[in-house]
Amino acid sequence: MEREHNLVPEDAWWKRYLYRIIYRSDTKLGKLFDIILLLLILISTAIIMMESIPKLDKRFHYTFIILEWIISIFFSIEYALRIAVVKNKRHYIFSFFGIIDFLALVPFYLSFFFPVTKYFLIFRMLRMLRVFRVFNLMDFMNDGFVIVRALKNSSRKIYIFLLFLIIFSVIVGSLMFMVEGGRPGFETIPQSIYWAVVTVTTVGYGDVSPITPMGKFFAVVLMLAGYSIIAVPTGIVTAEMRNKRQNLEKICDRCGNEDIDDDARYCKQCGKKLA
Amino acid sequence: MEREHNLVPEDAWWKRYLYRIIYRSDTKLGKLFDIILLLLILISTAIIMMESIPKLDKRFHYTFIILEWIISIFFSIEYALRIAVVKNKRHYIFSFFGIIDFLALVPFYLSFFFPVTKYFLIFRMLRMLRVFRVFNLMDFMNDGFVIVRALKNSSRKIYIFLLFLIIFSVIVGSLMFMVEGGRPGFETIPQSIYWAVVTVTTVGYGDVSPITPMGKFFAVVLMLAGYSIIAVPTGIVTAEMRNKRQNLEKICDRCGNEDIDDDARYCKQCGKKLA
Amino acid sequence: MEREHNLVPEDAWWKRYLYRIIYRSDTKLGKLFDIILLLLILISTAIIMMESIPKLDKRFHYTFIILEWIISIFFSIEYALRIAVVKNKRHYIFSFFGIIDFLALVPFYLSFFFPVTKYFLIFRMLRMLRVFRVFNLMDFMNDGFVIVRALKNSSRKIYIFLLFLIIFSVIVGSLMFMVEGGRPGFETIPQSIYWAVVTVTTVGYGDVSPITPMGKFFAVVLMLAGYSIIAVPTGIVTAEMRNKRQNLEKICDRCGNEDIDDDARYCKQCGKKLA
Amino acid sequence: MEREHNLVPEDAWWKRYLYRIIYRSDTKLGKLFDIILLLLILISTAIIMMESIPKLDKRFHYTFIILEWIISIFFSIEYALRIAVVKNKRHYIFSFFGIIDFLALVPFYLSFFFPVTKYFLIFRMLRMLRVFRVFNLMDFMNDGFVIVRALKNSSRKIYIFLLFLIIFSVIVGSLMFMVEGGRPGFETIPQSIYWAVVTVTTVGYGDVSPITPMGKFFAVVLMLAGYSIIAVPTGIVTAEMRNKRQNLEKICDRCGNEDIDDDARYCKQCGKKLA
Repeated sequence: MEREHNLVPEDAWWKRYLYRIIYRSDTKLGKLFDIILLLLILISTAIIMMESIPKLDKRFHYTFIILEWIISIFFSIEYALRIAVVKNKRHYIFSFFGIIDFLALVPFYLSFFFPVTKYFLIFRMLRMLRVFRVFNLMDFMNDGFVIVRALKNSSRKIYIFLLFLIIFSVIVGSLMFMVEGGRPGFETIPQSIYWAVVTVTTVGYGDVSPITPMGKFFAVVLMLAGYSIIAVPTGIVTAEMRNKRQNLEKICDRCGNEDIDDDARYCKQCGKKLA
Repeated sequence: MEREHNLVPEDAWWKRYLYRIIYRSDTKLGKLFDIILLLLILISTAIIMMESIPKLDKRFHYTFIILEWIISIFFSIEYALRIAVVKNKRHYIFSFFGIIDFLALVPFYLSFFFPVTKYFLIFRMLRMLRVFRVFNLMDFMNDGFVIVRALKNSSRKIYIFLLFLIIFSVIVGSLMFMVEGGRPGFETIPQSIYWAVVTVTTVGYGDVSPITPMGKFFAVVLMLAGYSIIAVPTGIVTAEMRNKRQNLEKICDRCGNEDIDDDARYCKQCGKKLA
Repeated sequence: MEREHNLVPEDAWWKRYLYRIIYRSDTKLGKLFDIILLLLILISTAIIMMESIPKLDKRFHYTFIILEWIISIFFSIEYALRIAVVKNKRHYIFSFFGIIDFLALVPFYLSFFFPVTKYFLIFRMLRMLRVFRVFNLMDFMNDGFVIVRALKNSSRKIYIFLLFLIIFSVIVGSLMFMVEGGRPGFETIPQSIYWAVVTVTTVGYGDVSPITPMGKFFAVVLMLAGYSIIAVPTGIVTAEMRNKRQNLEKICDRCGNEDIDDDARYCKQCGKKLA
Repeated sequence: MEREHNLVPEDAWWKRYLYRIIYRSDTKLGKLFDIILLLLILISTAIIMMESIPKLDKRFHYTFIILEWIISIFFSIEYALRIAVVKNKRHYIFSFFGIIDFLALVPFYLSFFFPVTKYFLIFRMLRMLRVFRVFNLMDFMNDGFVIVRALKNSSRKIYIFLLFLIIFSVIVGSLMFMVEGGRPGFETIPQSIYWAVVTVTTVGYGDVSPITPMGKFFAVVLMLAGYSIIAVPTGIVTAEMRNKRQNLEKICDRCGNEDIDDDARYCKQCGKKLA
């Protein structure tokens, strides 16, 4: 996730020093910094949750606000420093974690004008994804990459599938609207579509369910259809995952190709006979 | 989905001109035409949905009706032109999109006699599948084909599976009818079958759920069985999807190896350079 | 499913004649016989369902009973004939369809003594599986075999998985009983186990759902765990299905081995180089 | 699961004799011992369940308590003997079954001080996993291993997936809290997160479901997203399962081909006869 912005600044010694602490975790101070950051993220997330509970908010209202201020100021300073000490500033700002670091601050300042935006602070949780780097969990990170890559590679198929599913749900919902007329939960087409999605995805809250025998028959057909449809995204991702899984095994020692299947006897990139 | 009806008419110049606008999107006017079409489909779908909401229908009743008329007349003219300018008329009329274009018009004219059929206009949404051609999303279209073909190839297995599932649900529903007697939701066998399908597909609305300890025990057995059954359609589609992913590609003409990945430049079985 | 009991009797000509009609469908009369059988099964099933609906039963009570008698007597005669005309009687009686034919009759005669057993007549539906033979849908039948074989081959793994799942559900249910005390739906351990199964299998009726924050937290953990567990049966069947799928492709022309993988260059049974 | 602690003690003859009875099941007495153990575990589990049902507990209160005492004392003696007769005591105590045997006793003694802990006795059920050894179901055990190993090998990917899922649920829950305000079931952020998990995992109790049109729209988006996400753990385990199925087997010692099926007698890559 986080490409190394290891364009170490060369000008000032303190920049180089801070860079090492903030961006890396191979020094004691660097590790400490990362762990403090992680704790502050957890505390910040916990506070946002607890603020939403009236009983807790009444009792600790000011404690929460003060803590939120402290953490947000710390994060602001940290963000400023991150920009200051990195050489390729633009690279950091528009990187995955650069954007998240920014988004983790915005709601705090916005909430002065629009109080409701405060809850967007929950996006701070995404900063937790740094946890893998902090604890040197490179294996975990690699596995994470495999998942992300499989999803990315199958994203086009999934988009198409979702488009199909949406059109399917809209049509089914409209037909059900004709069947169940204005019965509770099927008063309008959008509500019937809501029911169709709840049913096809097998969530089945039960806040809306067919009432007439005709509607129930229709629902049974939909459920059986949905049961077959559920196989599609699984099939897509599994095929991709299986595909990706093979990548991690052998490497061609001539061209460095890593995408070698179990049963390959020649590298499919350069034609070298494999050991 | 849409086979090119590129049997360009040769007789009149205006036919050739219109053909290019309506069927292709490689000219500015052609693109504009497609985008207008797409917008009209979206607007038409939105109107049908909004008409079903009493509050909105009361306020904009006449606006909706007028818009519906305009769009339907536009679609009628478009359909007539499509037939007029294409050379192989029969080919277009019975093609996938030809049928959809027709179905998108029928409910409008039928609704003069049977007002309830108006809601079938929602089938217009299917015309949206043309979106891939409009925006030259050929990669998306290819991926769509892979899904459709995998479903088509496994359709026979899925039919059998559904037949099994229906017989299974009927039997389970009848047994449950004997267990839960005439308790609410289990008054008749068809209602018990409805419950069985809701349970086996893991939708679980909760509008009907077992009441007696015996019925709950029975439901637990069914749920555990259903949990294993759910794997079957997934297995079918996944095996087919994985299969398809490779089949669509090339064949080594030296050793006949068919297991060649997208990015392979040499056959992994015999080392031959691929074309 | 139905192994051919083609041990044609040689003694009497009428036996050979009836055998052909009853067991095969390659003559006009044989086909007619099968279709009548199919219709009677469908009618019989429909009657059982309709009998359970008080409104219909009141109106057509005697029609239903008379029809049931006629169909059951027909099935009895058919069963007797099936035994009479086949040579290897024991083979038929203990075959898959022989047992089903028998089970389709028992509830009718039992219902004289125990009226409730009448609903077991629904098992007659299983006779419908003969439909594939009647309509010569051999391709469907083969695909059915693939599914059945994949399930049979993975049955051992599925049993183990179910044993794990049951132990898991019992333990989780008991823990939940300690958390949610005697709250509605969690009054006893078996009821809590019922809730655990409903949750883990993602059915989620909602007739029982956690009430205390602690219980909700516990349920969230269970749901996330169940979400990962659901992958296991799918993985089992998919792996088996994929495996089986390969069988249907090539055949070794020396030893007739059909289990040949895509990438095999030598028959793994007899070592012959494959074409 | 249970590595053989076949470090048979050599000192005393009665130790060797007891060792054979307790740890093995190749003698008549050993088999009897295992079956008695299995029955006691089942009885013990049944008692715990029945004790939780007030009606049964009132009637058989003292029977239950006496039986529990007897079984627990038997298990205590058995545990002591297991340690006594095995040579490598530490090995047994910290083995999988050693820990379970210990955990099966602790709650009984703890319940004198903390009565509520009594229900932890349900963990005794885990001892049932020995059942495979008792009945010599080695094939089952091997298949169990395949599942466990596949889960273990994909555990890292599953952990990452769960971390993603938790972060995703927290963010979605918080956004929903902003949408549905303080409506029933969405009073606080933790409650909204509970709803998000119930929805994403497709459990869908329905005790909490969106009320406002905006909330329903949001829920629909979440459900469609969750529908794609559900494919990930399945893909992970399936890829691993498929992988495992082949890996456990043999290797061709001529060409090093590892892709050898259970029933192969010749290597499919080089044609060598397999041992």
